[in-house]
Amino acid sequence: MNFDQMFQTQLDALKEEGNYRVFAELERACGDFPRVKSHSNGSPDEVTVWCSNDYLGMGNNPTVMKAMMDTVAACGTGAGGTRNISGNAHHHKLLEAELADLHGKDAALLFTSGYVSNWASLSTLGSRLPNAVILSDSLNHASMIEGIRHAKCAKVIWKHNDPDDLDRKLAALPANATPIVAFESVYSMDGDIAPIAEILDVCEKHGAMSYIDEVHAVGMYGPRGGGVAEREGLMDRITLIEGTLGKAYGCVGGYITGSHALIDFIRSFASGFIFTTALPPAVAAAATASVKHLKESQWERAMQKRQVARLRARLDAEGIPHEHNASHIIPVMVKDPVKCKMLSDILMDQFGIYVQPINYPTVPKGTERLRFTPGPLHSDEDIEYLVMALKTLWKQCAIAHAVA
Amino acid sequence: MNFDQMFQTQLDALKEEGNYRVFAELERACGDFPRVKSHSNGSPDEVTVWCSNDYLGMGNNPTVMKAMMDTVAACGTGAGGTRNISGNAHHHKLLEAELADLHGKDAALLFTSGYVSNWASLSTLGSRLPNAVILSDSLNHASMIEGIRHAKCAKVIWKHNDPDDLDRKLAALPANATPIVAFESVYSMDGDIAPIAEILDVCEKHGAMSYIDEVHAVGMYGPRGGGVAEREGLMDRITLIEGTLGKAYGCVGGYITGSHALIDFIRSFASGFIFTTALPPAVAAAATASVKHLKESQWERAMQKRQVARLRARLDAEGIPHEHNASHIIPVMVKDPVKCKMLSDILMDQFGIYVQPINYPTVPKGTERLRFTPGPLHSDEDIEYLVMALKTLWKQCAIAHAVA
Repeated sequence: MNFDQMFQTQLDALKEEGNYRVFAELERACGDFPRVKSHSNGSPDEVTVWCSNDYLGMGNNPTVMKAMMDTVAACGTGAGGTRNISGNAHHHKLLEAELADLHGKDAALLFTSGYVSNWASLSTLGSRLPNAVILSDSLNHASMIEGIRHAKCAKVIWKHNDPDDLDRKLAALPANATPIVAFESVYSMDGDIAPIAEILDVCEKHGAMSYIDEVHAVGMYGPRGGGVAEREGLMDRITLIEGTLGKAYGCVGGYITGSHALIDFIRSFASGFIFTTALPPAVAAAATASVKHLKESQWERAMQKRQVARLRARLDAEGIPHEHNASHIIPVMVKDPVKCKMLSDILMDQFGIYVQPINYPTVPKGTERLRFTPGPLHSDEDIEYLVMALKTLWKQCAIAHAVA
Repeated sequence: MNFDQMFQTQLDALKEEGNYRVFAELERACGDFPRVKSHSNGSPDEVTVWCSNDYLGMGNNPTVMKAMMDTVAACGTGAGGTRNISGNAHHHKLLEAELADLHGKDAALLFTSGYVSNWASLSTLGSRLPNAVILSDSLNHASMIEGIRHAKCAKVIWKHNDPDDLDRKLAALPANATPIVAFESVYSMDGDIAPIAEILDVCEKHGAMSYIDEVHAVGMYGPRGGGVAEREGLMDRITLIEGTLGKAYGCVGGYITGSHALIDFIRSFASGFIFTTALPPAVAAAATASVKHLKESQWERAMQKRQVARLRARLDAEGIPHEHNASHIIPVMVKDPVKCKMLSDILMDQFGIYVQPINYPTVPKGTERLRFTPGPLHSDEDIEYLVMALKTLWKQCAIAHAVA
């Protein structure tokens, strides 16, 4: 049987529709970020990253780096086992305590990634709670969708960010259902923010569990970086808050926080937690330092907000269309996978600007986009250079724009 | 709805049956391993780890540690995005090239863990190949089982390590089936090794894809650490070899290797690969150093073999029953979750010996055990002390033993 032929057929179809992905190959150098060395063919040697999820540049924060290096020197490179079998380090416990405190919850549980934290938690809740029904926002992330799918419980999709639709769908459930409402705070590709208070009102009215994914918000929103729910004073009304250490905190890994019983339940039953090697203690130490830093420091959040506002204003002034939302994510819609990749390639090769084309399956077909994430380390000159490059391209490429 | 009550009910049942897990809390100190600081209640301050999956102590290898620290200093703590969106570092590419070379394959693909590599690869193969049927060894790891379950394709379980049963089951498939045979080389809990050549004979006879999990073998078997398949000269006959960086290589992360088309296929379609933040470049650099080191150095493998043989011989001499197998894993069967935990607690608290009780769901109920993994850093005195402690306990606890 020719397996390679089978693989190639599907890869060829992907290429045909313009959705084949080519990864830019980068090398960060501390102190230079968002400037990075590029190893990609055809690009300049140095490029400026405009699409990083290291939103606040914490991956290059000296305190965070020192915590990681010191812990490698003290403890070594790996955990050496699952949390249950020799891999449970003191550093994991310290980080979990820090995260529980961040969200005002009893306890927290670490996972190897945000993807796994969503997948493992939702699949465990959905499969083990009697008569579980997961009510999922229609634009939830792939990790949540796969977790719900894996749970094999009843599933109801509600209209994106629509508490009234959620209310109707909760009201229609059988009396014996155990409803779990799963949604995000900041949706990463459109940058819109959920009406959390209204959603929680509906959950409470129906006695439903609330499960929020704050991965694109932790570190960045709220006075201590607890996310949008912290900013809005809602954390205590949410059953489970999920977050990541791989975006604004600049490290890697995911986590959940909640009551003692909830965390002990997931810890005790989730296959994706039990059967996997723990994060390196050095990663846990770095993440702890990062969470601690962003509980106190306001500079990174303030500068990010400033540069996001500045880029939006400059795009508006130059008539470059972009989605207006209340977050730090600035999507510029292209709506065609081939054009989107072409624009990205020209920006990279001719301007040294790196912004990855966002295509299917990350976004629905026909909504391809460039997605800019300005951070505190982008200078005003960086913004000006980006806007000039986009302006040049928008003219050249004859793509419809606001002032056309 | 009282969710905490629901969680607690299931936790209480777990406690009732003796399967509730308490994690030992440890702190490694470089140079001292397998001696570690214990933060667990009731234990001595310093204990010796006898159940680590850092099988060769590479987590404390100076070259590996230096690679990780140097790369943190140079590049920072995190990757900053998925492999597609700004997270693809030069260090990931170097590691993938190193791994492809290790297994004599065209290409390799990194995942955040071995669990995710199995889950994502099997679920993608099973769900996307036309008429896929996954034939799974009955003792495959949870990560493979969950991946197969998630694929929602046809599934056939064959008798553990039984090529004849596999042959019959392949022969019974419909003509249009696309068969994928999934198995491990070293089974981690019993320590037995698959008859790989015979399994491959059967796969080739039926034109089936072969998928092998070598996570408990890479680094340790074969002249360059390529696993049991390398030792037996079989790597080129296997379609996909999966491995981990979190055990013998002392870091964290998983990977697959295979043909260009296979790797590109998984890279392009696997949700668990696409939608997750990449491993930190520093972890990739450490893993690269570890893989390189174990391609050349024989000392760690030779010393591990010596200490495994020594512990087995001493257990035999003292009449302490253990499973005889051809691997580095020494299971001592207790067959009761409560007794198993009690023995483990006494070893920890009274002797400073840390060996985690292995209970359900890691092993079937009624096969609870202590699982010893001697490594190159265990001294002859460590072995003697362990054997004496076990001998004392075996007498005290009146558990049936070979000379009773």
